[in-house]
Amino acid sequence: MKKLLFAAAGLLLSSAALISQQALWGGSEIVSPEIHDDYTVTFRLQAPNATEVKITGDWMPWQGWTPGSEIMEKGEDGIWTYTTGVLEPELYSYLFTVDGLNCHDPNNVNLIRDVARVTNVFILGDGRAGLYRVNDVPHGTVARRWYDSPGNNKTRRISIYTPPGYENSREKYPVLYLLHGVGGDEEAWIALGGTAQIMDNLIASGKAKPMIVVMPNGNVSQQAAPGEGPEGFIKPSFQLPNTMDGKMEETFMDIIKFVEGNYRVIPKKEGRAIAGLSMGGYHTLHISRYYPNTFDYIGLFSPAILPNESADSKVYDDFEATLKKQMENGYELYWIAIGKADFLYGAVEEYRARLDAMGMPYIYRESEGGHTWSNWRIYLSEFVQELFK
Amino acid sequence: MKKLLFAAAGLLLSSAALISQQALWGGSEIVSPEIHDDYTVTFRLQAPNATEVKITGDWMPWQGWTPGSEIMEKGEDGIWTYTTGVLEPELYSYLFTVDGLNCHDPNNVNLIRDVARVTNVFILGDGRAGLYRVNDVPHGTVARRWYDSPGNNKTRRISIYTPPGYENSREKYPVLYLLHGVGGDEEAWIALGGTAQIMDNLIASGKAKPMIVVMPNGNVSQQAAPGEGPEGFIKPSFQLPNTMDGKMEETFMDIIKFVEGNYRVIPKKEGRAIAGLSMGGYHTLHISRYYPNTFDYIGLFSPAILPNESADSKVYDDFEATLKKQMENGYELYWIAIGKADFLYGAVEEYRARLDAMGMPYIYRESEGGHTWSNWRIYLSEFVQELFK
Repeated sequence: MKKLLFAAAGLLLSSAALISQQALWGGSEIVSPEIHDDYTVTFRLQAPNATEVKITGDWMPWQGWTPGSEIMEKGEDGIWTYTTGVLEPELYSYLFTVDGLNCHDPNNVNLIRDVARVTNVFILGDGRAGLYRVNDVPHGTVARRWYDSPGNNKTRRISIYTPPGYENSREKYPVLYLLHGVGGDEEAWIALGGTAQIMDNLIASGKAKPMIVVMPNGNVSQQAAPGEGPEGFIKPSFQLPNTMDGKMEETFMDIIKFVEGNYRVIPKKEGRAIAGLSMGGYHTLHISRYYPNTFDYIGLFSPAILPNESADSKVYDDFEATLKKQMENGYELYWIAIGKADFLYGAVEEYRARLDAMGMPYIYRESEGGHTWSNWRIYLSEFVQELFK
Repeated sequence: MKKLLFAAAGLLLSSAALISQQALWGGSEIVSPEIHDDYTVTFRLQAPNATEVKITGDWMPWQGWTPGSEIMEKGEDGIWTYTTGVLEPELYSYLFTVDGLNCHDPNNVNLIRDVARVTNVFILGDGRAGLYRVNDVPHGTVARRWYDSPGNNKTRRISIYTPPGYENSREKYPVLYLLHGVGGDEEAWIALGGTAQIMDNLIASGKAKPMIVVMPNGNVSQQAAPGEGPEGFIKPSFQLPNTMDGKMEETFMDIIKFVEGNYRVIPKKEGRAIAGLSMGGYHTLHISRYYPNTFDYIGLFSPAILPNESADSKVYDDFEATLKKQMENGYELYWIAIGKADFLYGAVEEYRARLDAMGMPYIYRESEGGHTWSNWRIYLSEFVQELFK
């Protein structure tokens, strides 16, 4: 039958060469980023017509809410280059600015969206960055599902990590509810937080217990992340309606009910943890005291603390009483983490003073840096090692 | 307790405004793309320093392997604009070229990767494009899992769609195995093919039976898509080793075994369909005849046909005999689709002549256009309506 070879496959294979990156990306077989053995990194961009090309990378000193930038150097071949100093192991993001216009690196298809900002990413080194890599360990499953939220009168999309072996076991698993910040959604902890990789790696090394991680969308006005819901390919907004007015807290039992009705879990306080970053820390704080006997493990990562003045939900009516009740009911861990440079540092300091005055026990973890995903990945990595022991 | 409002939340909320798209994307509150009621679309890019800005969109006449491009018009405000003619309903992709450099639209975060090419996307209109939208219908679950492939001596990532209601039913479901083309991976049918949306919408309208759709990675040298496996954030290659040399076909039972051991399925020929595009059509052709009594439904979308001369697998030894056996064993549907402008058109024509000579029945669907995702989404939408009836 091999005699019967037609032109088709050969044609497909030779055509394949035509559709290489070369053809699709304008003659570029450039390597960028190039990660060197000494932990420096070289970036390259072919832009012969550009007058000025800058690179913005989140390893550079931050200027307020955005990392700084550096001017790249133009070579005679029209390729602009920039080499960093020695960097710490980390998952880094960057983008180019070509004559004032933000552009992605056409030689790096790895992109992550943070709110409305899409950047290129790369992972450098091992150490803590090793936790963010897909290593040769057993892998959990990440499912995007839809649950019914009667409290919000809609079905909503949710990301759920189940640990390796979950599907072929009869065991019941504990659950971590993991909440994102303002502008995030049910994709944030997966894409920016490296949650699946962190969990796989910590479970494989025996440092974290196998657990389910539930990542809902904390914007209750929204059914799903941009591009994933009936609103279509919308432009993400930073602050959506009803994100910090009590509605998320009021309707959180819809999520727990869904999870406990659909997964083999330990449907008790001892099998439940909740944590979140920034607005998600705020949600965590208020959910855990509003349902004051529900969670044995509470993690506030760079949290906002108190409702704004316009919030009028019953959730905020009995702050002190419910917090006290939560304390009296007892819990295994109340964990607060924040960076020294975080704009919420002072608020957290005040909250800690308040907890101290009440005699409410907590563990406090202060890190370097500010309100960044770099810190939230570290906090997640540390927090999950303390759970369900 | 509302007296106790600290500055924290207010600070978070007011800071939120600072981190708007405005701050992150250089003062841009531009709407792009703007889809008009008459199905024309306006694109805008703020690039005051640019000399020439072009837009490439896949609604433009194709020039070989890439769509054509048009020059945008610069306004006095430094914003370049371009408005299309009236377009057909479709999921479209586009990108800008600024002074020779490919750039994404910074006002559209919706990006899809096709091999090493990342483009912006939008959906226009209803009609067939309505099938590609997330509509207000029950949604299935999409899971990314890892299965063991002893035949390839590795664990491998796989995308699996389970239909609405799967989790809360005791029913057994039929399975469609859906294979990607050269340069694709286990993300391709989800991201580019709109598989989850197409299935949700066709199942909701009763036009397709509820089924599981299994989307493996057809590059057996690879564990997972770029960025999702131990190789890390690699640059995607168009043609990987062992993609068309028989290894995928030889080890396909690893996938069926995994699915039938892990899902509530009908583990019989009548409960199995297989389809694929281009290289995936080639895999489909050879898998379905190599295991000639395994699938009742076979779909070849713009398929490559025969192995290249260097392929030396036993899979290709008995082409004619196994094809004949497949015919004699019987099947419900052997469906071949190709576009009139497809570079594989002639090869498919020869293959059909061969099937005709053998008396092997098939349904032939000829469409306009060429070797494009637009066609493959249409073929999928049509093919699944014929399955498991």
